Amino acid sequence: MSDFDATRKRLVSRFESALADYAARWSAWPEGLVAPVRHVLFGGGKRVRPLLALLAAEAVSDDAAPALPWAIAVEMIHTYSLAHDDLPAMDDDDERRGRPTCHIAYDEAHAILAGDALLTEAFLVLADGGWPAKTAVQLTRMLGIAAGGQGMVGGQILDIGGELTTMQALEHMQRLKTGALIRVAADGGAIAAGGSQTQVAAIRACGAALGLLFQITDDLLDRLQDPEEDGKNVLDLVDVQGALARRDEVARGAIDALTPLGERAAPLAALVHAVAHRDQ
Amino acid sequence: MSDFDATRKRLVSRFESALADYAARWSAWPEGLVAPVRHVLFGGGKRVRPLLALLAAEAVSDDAAPALPWAIAVEMIHTYSLAHDDLPAMDDDDERRGRPTCHIAYDEAHAILAGDALLTEAFLVLADGGWPAKTAVQLTRMLGIAAGGQGMVGGQILDIGGELTTMQALEHMQRLKTGALIRVAADGGAIAAGGSQTQVAAIRACGAALGLLFQITDDLLDRLQDPEEDGKNVLDLVDVQGALARRDEVARGAIDALTPLGERAAPLAALVHAVAHRDQ
Repeated sequence: MSDFDATRKRLVSRFESALADYAARWSAWPEGLVAPVRHVLFGGGKRVRPLLALLAAEAVSDDAAPALPWAIAVEMIHTYSLAHDDLPAMDDDDERRGRPTCHIAYDEAHAILAGDALLTEAFLVLADGGWPAKTAVQLTRMLGIAAGGQGMVGGQILDIGGELTTMQALEHMQRLKTGALIRVAADGGAIAAGGSQTQVAAIRACGAALGLLFQITDDLLDRLQDPEEDGKNVLDLVDVQGALARRDEVARGAIDALTPLGERAAPLAALVHAVAHRDQ
Repeated sequence: MSDFDATRKRLVSRFESALADYAARWSAWPEGLVAPVRHVLFGGGKRVRPLLALLAAEAVSDDAAPALPWAIAVEMIHTYSLAHDDLPAMDDDDERRGRPTCHIAYDEAHAILAGDALLTEAFLVLADGGWPAKTAVQLTRMLGIAAGGQGMVGGQILDIGGELTTMQALEHMQRLKTGALIRVAADGGAIAAGGSQTQVAAIRACGAALGLLFQITDDLLDRLQDPEEDGKNVLDLVDVQGALARRDEVARGAIDALTPLGERAAPLAALVHAVAHRDQ
């Protein structure tokens, strides 16, 4: 196992444990809500955003623990959006990661409400995160902007609108829908862990490039998996070689941004490399 | 026009003006999102919760302005929940207040996403409310609890579950679905306006009784409007005279709770009276 794989396993395992502890609080919720919420939240995801948050925290501090509530909130936002995007009125997906989606396992009403509960709970997690109040407010603002109308919800509106006929329009949609949360995940992890302004600025620059890198590699994967597909694919408009070159350039930028943090940021740099070369 | 009517008009008008100013920020959102969000938020509601928040603020302070962001956030939560509850998968309502519901005026996807955007935005409003950070965090926690799994979303799950066969189960559902947000609306208004602990405690006691009063009068109105309806109606299980007596007792409790605030709380007491005797 590589050093990075070991770090990833350690941090994801720490995240899963903190998430399970948090979810134990829901004993006061109606049972009919807890089951679909757990279905959505413990759905076998790779926990990329929490990992990113915790790697950013360890790049600025010896202790990633203060970033755990932030990682939990970000993952709640990510998974709520999957539950709502999967609904028949939107992408109408029956399966995700080999399991039935929430509205198939339960029904549409429960999938909508499970998403609503997770979206709400994400902000409650931030209010209870244990940071100085100013930090909690800053993180709440960051998450609200990334998740809302100028972020993920706005991106999904553009995606279902379907009039994405220019590369610019497609990239704008993806920047909102996917990029916004990736960008803040790292940034918030560094802030939650008490990083200095200089450190947070370095992480922010890396996160911004990483958000773009996710979009580029999403497109590359779409293209490689289904070369015939047309429609909303940036690579229908540019050549694959150009996209690969751009991917490498953006990944290099993300890694270069970490220089001020020194060796401590090596695992985060390794994540950037892994994202650039991911095959799923 | 009574003194109370004049106060109500003044405060609702002030709220509408602040809300319109806030909504002007959404020029950066995709147009396809702004229209359904505005449809939901400016849907001709009576603005009971914002009025309650502002009356509570004026009961503890000369200036209700600091409570405006709280009033906006609470109304965003209320209206998002209406948009989601109206969906075909839930109550399947085509009309609300004489206008088409959001999924009729637009479509289901836009109604789901408009709700998601408003729910998210409510927390962003709190992060940008201009209060001391500790106050912002306290209000975020209050709204998160009232809106989430142990509040409104939990109540809606119980409501659609349909196994409400005892008065206790019905009242529990209503306490979560309707009562939770009413209860915090006043409380948060007093906190946002900088009320002292004693003042906030008085408002909180009034708000708790008012939440219950809303439930009792909802039931009375249901019964009076449709005496044949069975199912989830508390008054199928108790007599109307008993409910009227209970209504008066709870209203008296809500008004008595305001005693420590003196004359300043008279308009809030008048609202309690108006809720007890409302006919819609």
